[in-house]
Amino acid sequence: MPYYIGDVIKDANKLTARTPEKFREGGIEVMQNNRVERVDTDAQEVLLEDGAKIPYDILALGTGTTAMRAGIPGEDMDGVFVLKHLGDALNIKRYLKDNKCQKAIVVGAGFIGMEVCEAFATLGMETSVVHRGQYPANRWDPELSGFILEEIRKNQVTFHTNMQIIAIEKGPQHPLRLHTNQGPLDGDLILLALGVKPDVALAKGMGLAIGQSGAVAVNYSQQTSIPNIYAAGDCCEAYHRVSRRWVNIPLGDIANKQGRVAGSVIGGKPMIFPGIVGAQSFRIFHLEAAATGINEKEALGVGYCPVSDITWGNATAASMPGPKKLGLKLIADRVTGRLLGAQAVGEKGAVGRINTLSAALWTGMRLDEIGYLDLAYAPPFSGSWDIIHIAAQKLLRKM
Amino acid sequence: MPYYIGDVIKDANKLTARTPEKFREGGIEVMQNNRVERVDTDAQEVLLEDGAKIPYDILALGTGTTAMRAGIPGEDMDGVFVLKHLGDALNIKRYLKDNKCQKAIVVGAGFIGMEVCEAFATLGMETSVVHRGQYPANRWDPELSGFILEEIRKNQVTFHTNMQIIAIEKGPQHPLRLHTNQGPLDGDLILLALGVKPDVALAKGMGLAIGQSGAVAVNYSQQTSIPNIYAAGDCCEAYHRVSRRWVNIPLGDIANKQGRVAGSVIGGKPMIFPGIVGAQSFRIFHLEAAATGINEKEALGVGYCPVSDITWGNATAASMPGPKKLGLKLIADRVTGRLLGAQAVGEKGAVGRINTLSAALWTGMRLDEIGYLDLAYAPPFSGSWDIIHIAAQKLLRKM
Repeated sequence: MPYYIGDVIKDANKLTARTPEKFREGGIEVMQNNRVERVDTDAQEVLLEDGAKIPYDILALGTGTTAMRAGIPGEDMDGVFVLKHLGDALNIKRYLKDNKCQKAIVVGAGFIGMEVCEAFATLGMETSVVHRGQYPANRWDPELSGFILEEIRKNQVTFHTNMQIIAIEKGPQHPLRLHTNQGPLDGDLILLALGVKPDVALAKGMGLAIGQSGAVAVNYSQQTSIPNIYAAGDCCEAYHRVSRRWVNIPLGDIANKQGRVAGSVIGGKPMIFPGIVGAQSFRIFHLEAAATGINEKEALGVGYCPVSDITWGNATAASMPGPKKLGLKLIADRVTGRLLGAQAVGEKGAVGRINTLSAALWTGMRLDEIGYLDLAYAPPFSGSWDIIHIAAQKLLRKM
Repeated sequence: MPYYIGDVIKDANKLTARTPEKFREGGIEVMQNNRVERVDTDAQEVLLEDGAKIPYDILALGTGTTAMRAGIPGEDMDGVFVLKHLGDALNIKRYLKDNKCQKAIVVGAGFIGMEVCEAFATLGMETSVVHRGQYPANRWDPELSGFILEEIRKNQVTFHTNMQIIAIEKGPQHPLRLHTNQGPLDGDLILLALGVKPDVALAKGMGLAIGQSGAVAVNYSQQTSIPNIYAAGDCCEAYHRVSRRWVNIPLGDIANKQGRVAGSVIGGKPMIFPGIVGAQSFRIFHLEAAATGINEKEALGVGYCPVSDITWGNATAASMPGPKKLGLKLIADRVTGRLLGAQAVGEKGAVGRINTLSAALWTGMRLDEIGYLDLAYAPPFSGSWDIIHIAAQKLLRKM
């Protein structure tokens, strides 16, 4: 009998009425609003917070990540949120409505910070982003994230750079005041989008091996260090085909794939998860931002000899009206000539290029091949030399 | 001293004032509005139509293609055009303006037919397409080109199917009448977009080997059967990495790449053209159409065991407002599991998917890998399982 213990779709009710519930769906016994306190791996038993014990033959962990907190006074006040679970989103929506919010502060400029600042601005709120660094989206080269920053500011979002948060307290006019190293900011709502870390508390309690990345170590079949215990998704590692290291990149598409692999193996059909290349993307207003592979620092860290270059161009042919600005950075290994990574930001076509280069990374293609790759040319979609070709040939000349 | 003989940017004047002209640009002697009558490969001399002889050490051919004519009475009348050269485009523009055209007929439903019918309709003309088949864009599966047909009709273009053209004569109200097997059509302008064929007249005169495709045979260095004679672009063949045959696919991006390779080899830097995978695309109104690799018929022809499937989905995640319909056909080899080809049509994201799959074809990736390929997921750009993954896994289950 398969069991599922965790938050299901009714998660939103959890905070107001957290009552354990049990139901069956598709032959699976689902227990929601319950918590696994401990797993006894010798007895092969899961101990629930309500005292129940469930025996298991095979156990699969999908504990995901937890949102990082700032560790500053006042961060637990009403109106201060993180955005990790569906319940968080519903709580934010309810708070926005109940409090007729007009001023929002987003702390952090990663994927969640970027997507939420757009959502808040689109709802008509006066929105500020507070960032400890100089540019948003630190996976992208500053030259590319500078373009993202322009887009954010063009859309009436205030972006504060090099700002450290100190404390949150009640505000004079708006409910909240955020104290920073550059003075106070007032708002109706504060979202802490400071990143996530793998939730490995349960795994550690069970004595499972934890990888260098801090996530649960797994093999290609998603088995942990205890063979009848599997893990999938944000809580565990994935093999990175470019760096050839086990990494933790908490993204929904990777989680979906690993879950499918674990399910297949557990169900008796052997399968391996072939790994990742680090492809990721987000949209910010009218810009696409996408990246894949590894950056120079990561490349140096694993012993490659990275060389890189940024090319600015157009997602369409020069003959087309309304050019679409597109920037593409390529990182390659000087010794082997292989592509190691790519980052793109543009008004159009950034994700398509990064996916193409992800397929190239998957098989370890070299820059000289990428410079002559056969792509589907038509003027609305690229020049007869695509920015991929131009960038690859330009970087090749640097090597 | 390098020479260039052919049509330069002033091509448009050719029909009205075709006077040979000579100038120098960047150390190259350019002769325009002149014609090479013959090449004496023993004497290594090019004989021009004005009687001049130019000696050569190395000769490069870029004779391109010629537009096919229908071979019907009246096809040379005023107002009947093909669209091959820049001069053709300028002549069409001039004719449209001088004759205040209101009704246009496009014969043919390939790339040029599709692009021009959109251009004519966008100019506000009542536009008809006459097609001998059932669906436009015959490289695409009828299920996908049916979607293209819907889009054409949605945009007020009349699309006649299974129509054979018989003759063109003067019309009663409009200048031209096109007789067909389904009765007459009247218009101000008729565009014959019947395809192109490699222009190999000169090459044949020189005794150069012509390939199975009817285009000039070349090697990876763009050398013809006479080693000091090179060819590049639409007039010659290219190695197809999927069918492993030499083919002629007349497209501007391939021509550009081959020209660069020929130039590099001639200039003393050895280089090889790595071949093509058949990537191509066009836009029709609000649809993207793109294809790559080979279709079932071509696959059978070269001895593969093709199996295929069409997946309809969405270019964005289900959670995003405004779904963007996208269809993707995959063709794979049952024996090896390798992808052989792909065709996509969609409101968004078709070209990006086809380029990703072109990179996969380039290195011979299998369907099981493609089903788990790491792509840059974010809801504005795909579901967490992209249509590429879904289609690959669906086809895999059929094998």
